[in-house]
Amino acid sequence: MAAEIAEQPAVLARLVERRDALDAVRRRIADYAPRFVLFAARGTSDHAALYGKYLVEIVRQQPAGLVSPSTLTLYGARPDLHGVLFVAVSQSGASPDLVRSVEVARAGGALTVAITNTAGSPLATAAEVHVDVLAGPELAVAATKTYTAQLLALWQLLVGGTADDTGALPDAASRTLAHSAEVDRAATGLIGHDRIVVTGRGLSYPTAREGALKLMETSYVAALAFSGADLVHGPLAMVDRDTAVVAVTTPGPGGDAMADVVGRVEQIGATLVRVGGPAGLPVDTAGVPAELVPVLEILPLQRLAWRLAIERGNDPDRPRGLSKVTETL
Amino acid sequence: MAAEIAEQPAVLARLVERRDALDAVRRRIADYAPRFVLFAARGTSDHAALYGKYLVEIVRQQPAGLVSPSTLTLYGARPDLHGVLFVAVSQSGASPDLVRSVEVARAGGALTVAITNTAGSPLATAAEVHVDVLAGPELAVAATKTYTAQLLALWQLLVGGTADDTGALPDAASRTLAHSAEVDRAATGLIGHDRIVVTGRGLSYPTAREGALKLMETSYVAALAFSGADLVHGPLAMVDRDTAVVAVTTPGPGGDAMADVVGRVEQIGATLVRVGGPAGLPVDTAGVPAELVPVLEILPLQRLAWRLAIERGNDPDRPRGLSKVTETL
Repeated sequence: MAAEIAEQPAVLARLVERRDALDAVRRRIADYAPRFVLFAARGTSDHAALYGKYLVEIVRQQPAGLVSPSTLTLYGARPDLHGVLFVAVSQSGASPDLVRSVEVARAGGALTVAITNTAGSPLATAAEVHVDVLAGPELAVAATKTYTAQLLALWQLLVGGTADDTGALPDAASRTLAHSAEVDRAATGLIGHDRIVVTGRGLSYPTAREGALKLMETSYVAALAFSGADLVHGPLAMVDRDTAVVAVTTPGPGGDAMADVVGRVEQIGATLVRVGGPAGLPVDTAGVPAELVPVLEILPLQRLAWRLAIERGNDPDRPRGLSKVTETL
Repeated sequence: MAAEIAEQPAVLARLVERRDALDAVRRRIADYAPRFVLFAARGTSDHAALYGKYLVEIVRQQPAGLVSPSTLTLYGARPDLHGVLFVAVSQSGASPDLVRSVEVARAGGALTVAITNTAGSPLATAAEVHVDVLAGPELAVAATKTYTAQLLALWQLLVGGTADDTGALPDAASRTLAHSAEVDRAATGLIGHDRIVVTGRGLSYPTAREGALKLMETSYVAALAFSGADLVHGPLAMVDRDTAVVAVTTPGPGGDAMADVVGRVEQIGATLVRVGGPAGLPVDTAGVPAELVPVLEILPLQRLAWRLAIERGNDPDRPRGLSKVTETL
């Protein structure tokens, strides 16, 4: 897992390099002129899909949704999806429910795209368009480099931008990863906490979700993820002095809106760890557009989960009860 | 909270009675012929919205999405929403971000509907159509009767059906609520658990989310909700012998698909509480269509949360740190 975390600047550089190779796919989407975008995914890839949904809503300014795959598999719905761009995201491209979802979406008239790390996978074959995330083999059960690669691939697909937009990303990732000492100190502060709330808003909400999943997978803590707005609509009641709260506060519309939430957490006296911003674990965003910051702000959270697992005596490379490819129907 | 839980059969009967009063709204939606349905909500109402999304996907067989309100407020997106049915759900109808979302959706060409318990609220006024859930004043901070009323109102709006479909619901709710002794015994078994995973699939997934929120609000446990499929994609690693797992297993496509998940939980040796089905806390579904079962299967979970709070020495009517109306921007 540590090796794959460290590989991320190189993976991102590879994706930045291949940007123009997606021109044909972007043209195809533009010609199709989708009116809605649907995403289908599970686990870490579902958090990448959530990021994709924010990109569609904020940058493309179009309606979007995360499809519940069970509606197309267990319940057998056969929707009319003409005019819908249907994007399935999966590291392995092997989960039967996602493959079936793409088949149903394609039969329903959607333009189907699979974003995977496995070119010859059933999912890549089922979709009309395959976008490779070029992360190389991922061996750790807890996905890291495929997550950031999925984010950048989604941005390249859905936003496009120019080569200049992404050029600074690999170095910014390297600089952010270099701050491991600060992250390790924060991990030490979390050793005694069995309950960790991870929260963020807007584009940082997928970061909070993915950070919580890494903590669950490697450190076995009860890591609960909420948007900052939903947290104050109820779950805040279970935040007490023994709870740790990890708040993603990278400056921007999402991070800035966390000020009120952070204030309430401080008032309760819970242990607070910030990610990004002047008081947070460093996220070096220089030269990187705001919409790409999620690629960077997950990096300290990956390290935090890895380090906390070791501090708690777990093996982050062999999470109990999980396998790399999960098959759900 | 206990009084409001007990009121639910009467609230449901009131909604069954007014079914025909929604004919004009249903005709208006049919004339508008939406191609896509978006929902906006927070907290408990967001779980009702998630149920609405399943209804759209399964029964209407149309694409749907849960909008992230921050994209329309903090990020200022102004999407073209012609052809979109935009449904905002809120007990109080007072949260500024939802009101703003409806204003933006309406300006963007959507047909806007507000589902609230407060007829004169800003949200009811902002939307073109208001659907009242007729639950009467809800005083407990932890919403119960407004949740089941929202579910039935969403079904009446989005599915319609016939009076026969809902006629059995109030009595089925009474019969389900009558099994309080079994629920109280299950609560006793959970006193020592600080980590409770609540899980369900398909139409029962909103039930799992809402059940977890009740547990957090009243009993202050770390209650983590996952779809059964997502649970095995990572979070299962943090389920151990000290974890309690509440699995919604009411027979049907969703409940049946939980067999594998329940098997893995049993293998781990975690404490298991089932809701619905032959081995679960009783959910009496006789005469009730499958798509309306979520109105019933949340009832034992509401009681479980209330009872567990008392057993743990908390006051379920005064959850710490929360207020009844939450305002987020």
